[in-house]
Amino acid sequence: MKAKKYVVLNPFVGEPKKSDFTIGIEESLPALQENEFLAEAVYLSVDPYQRWQRDLSYPYDMIGGQIARVIESRNDAYPVGTWVMGHFGWRTYTVTKPDDERFSAKLPYLYRLPDFGDLPVSLGLGVCGRVGNTAYFGLTEFCKPEPGETVVVSGAAGAVGSHVGQIAKLFGCRVIGFAGTDEKCEWLTKELGFDFAANYKTVDLGKYLDQNAPKGVDCYFDNVGGEVSSIVMSKMNEFGRVAVCGSISTYNETNPDKMKATVLQPLIVGKQLSIHGFLVNRFADRTIEGVLQNLKWIREGKIKYRETIVHGFENAIDAFIGLFRGNNTGKSLVKIN
Amino acid sequence: MKAKKYVVLNPFVGEPKKSDFTIGIEESLPALQENEFLAEAVYLSVDPYQRWQRDLSYPYDMIGGQIARVIESRNDAYPVGTWVMGHFGWRTYTVTKPDDERFSAKLPYLYRLPDFGDLPVSLGLGVCGRVGNTAYFGLTEFCKPEPGETVVVSGAAGAVGSHVGQIAKLFGCRVIGFAGTDEKCEWLTKELGFDFAANYKTVDLGKYLDQNAPKGVDCYFDNVGGEVSSIVMSKMNEFGRVAVCGSISTYNETNPDKMKATVLQPLIVGKQLSIHGFLVNRFADRTIEGVLQNLKWIREGKIKYRETIVHGFENAIDAFIGLFRGNNTGKSLVKIN
Repeated sequence: MKAKKYVVLNPFVGEPKKSDFTIGIEESLPALQENEFLAEAVYLSVDPYQRWQRDLSYPYDMIGGQIARVIESRNDAYPVGTWVMGHFGWRTYTVTKPDDERFSAKLPYLYRLPDFGDLPVSLGLGVCGRVGNTAYFGLTEFCKPEPGETVVVSGAAGAVGSHVGQIAKLFGCRVIGFAGTDEKCEWLTKELGFDFAANYKTVDLGKYLDQNAPKGVDCYFDNVGGEVSSIVMSKMNEFGRVAVCGSISTYNETNPDKMKATVLQPLIVGKQLSIHGFLVNRFADRTIEGVLQNLKWIREGKIKYRETIVHGFENAIDAFIGLFRGNNTGKSLVKIN
Repeated sequence: MKAKKYVVLNPFVGEPKKSDFTIGIEESLPALQENEFLAEAVYLSVDPYQRWQRDLSYPYDMIGGQIARVIESRNDAYPVGTWVMGHFGWRTYTVTKPDDERFSAKLPYLYRLPDFGDLPVSLGLGVCGRVGNTAYFGLTEFCKPEPGETVVVSGAAGAVGSHVGQIAKLFGCRVIGFAGTDEKCEWLTKELGFDFAANYKTVDLGKYLDQNAPKGVDCYFDNVGGEVSSIVMSKMNEFGRVAVCGSISTYNETNPDKMKATVLQPLIVGKQLSIHGFLVNRFADRTIEGVLQNLKWIREGKIKYRETIVHGFENAIDAFIGLFRGNNTGKSLVKIN
């Protein structure tokens, strides 16, 4: 049995390039030992965080979650046919077992998917997986929105951002999203129920917030970093809460001068802001709680989602590059045919 | 009976100037009503936060704390001879009473000084007052330092910074201070017990931290903001805690380009940092707790302090300007002769 996998050859500089990878290296898989199972990847996850794996040495196997199906098993807890979320990286087949040390740095690295019924299993990487949990725990644990408060979301048409705004609406908040195209903004307001959405590339964000958040901003869920965030934070109220989930505006930047933005500290002090950066693996032991909560909202029709699916194992890098160009709406995935 | 006072005429632009004030306006004081007392200012407080009173309309009476002595009284709780800390502003005499609405925005706006014994009452504005409480509550509530952790303090030779570093030493931490002259650094290490101190104007801070904080920075108490802080935060450990107390590097800046610093969000996410901006009035109801704790440490010789005292009511602006030029070491005060 052979698996194909992506290997990252060197640190990404600027936008990721095909030449940063070796694509489709073949690897022979060992026979199953006791407790092990063989999983066949069906969907690969494409996420911004895959851009900055600073602590690994090169070359390394590309990281990432996948939805896979158990096709051979010597583990009674993972019989053939079981759907799993596994942090196996960008590879087609994986021989693994619970407590596999190879994946232990990326909690939660393996769990059985709850029964999604007639919903697609791909949700296990998106709204009912890491993405949904990032939105749910980040918003509830760090922004702690109260009914009537104003919540701003940047990167609002991304997988996490679009989910965050909808949860904030369920909490009774006034929700404002910033995204990078007019079409995305229309989707946010017309389909997802955001109160307001603006194209950060064409709108004066400060004036926009003065108009549409006249009582100030109480919570800010930040996916982008940089000047957009400095402007949003300048419009926050005293004791405002910021969850910093990403900084996609800067990940590919190589010019140090462009890595500068208006200093935040005067705002942080004057408004007594609380800012929490987080990675969702911090909430690994609450994974299923988050998945089930999001699954419930989706079944009730309270949260909508989109997926941007690229077909074919060999096209994963295109999906990855597209993420930083803003090509995706909602969760970016690769379907292995 | 007449009082003299400072009036602020217009918003400060850049460095505060004498022409921003009217100095020594005379005001007639009313006769005491029941419950009121007359307090004579002995020390005025000079603090960075007095620079940015954005919410007031102009002209306004200069704000600030003072140590005053009750010299006439119709309030049994404040008999003649009582020493008080009052947030009366820069003025020589004040007729007031508990719950005086004029000062209610600036908690804690009035309390009787605890018995300082043979220590000077001026400490009631410094290490045993607002300054000491800023250091104590900011460090313990937001940085939460543990024994063995590394704590960095910027603006370390200022009133708050020098106090913070000493408390962190009492907590068993490795303490590194940044200040603006070699003399200040020497004071921090030789007299106050900081483990390391460096002149941020002449040292490569990143390299300095690599050398002297080889295990990374766990806590950062930020008094300055700007690029110094971006560098410190780039050296922090996962789950590092930042207390943002001030941003003195930017208060007088009028050039928007110089108001930029390296974007913090990638660090905030990747290291899962927690950042809290705060003003000490948030802990107003714990004022005496903080004062007594600091008083105890000072009596035990565990915390040392300096005061930079300018003599004469008419020289307060010089003290204020000097604060932003880094002329003071420790607490800046005006003694009214």
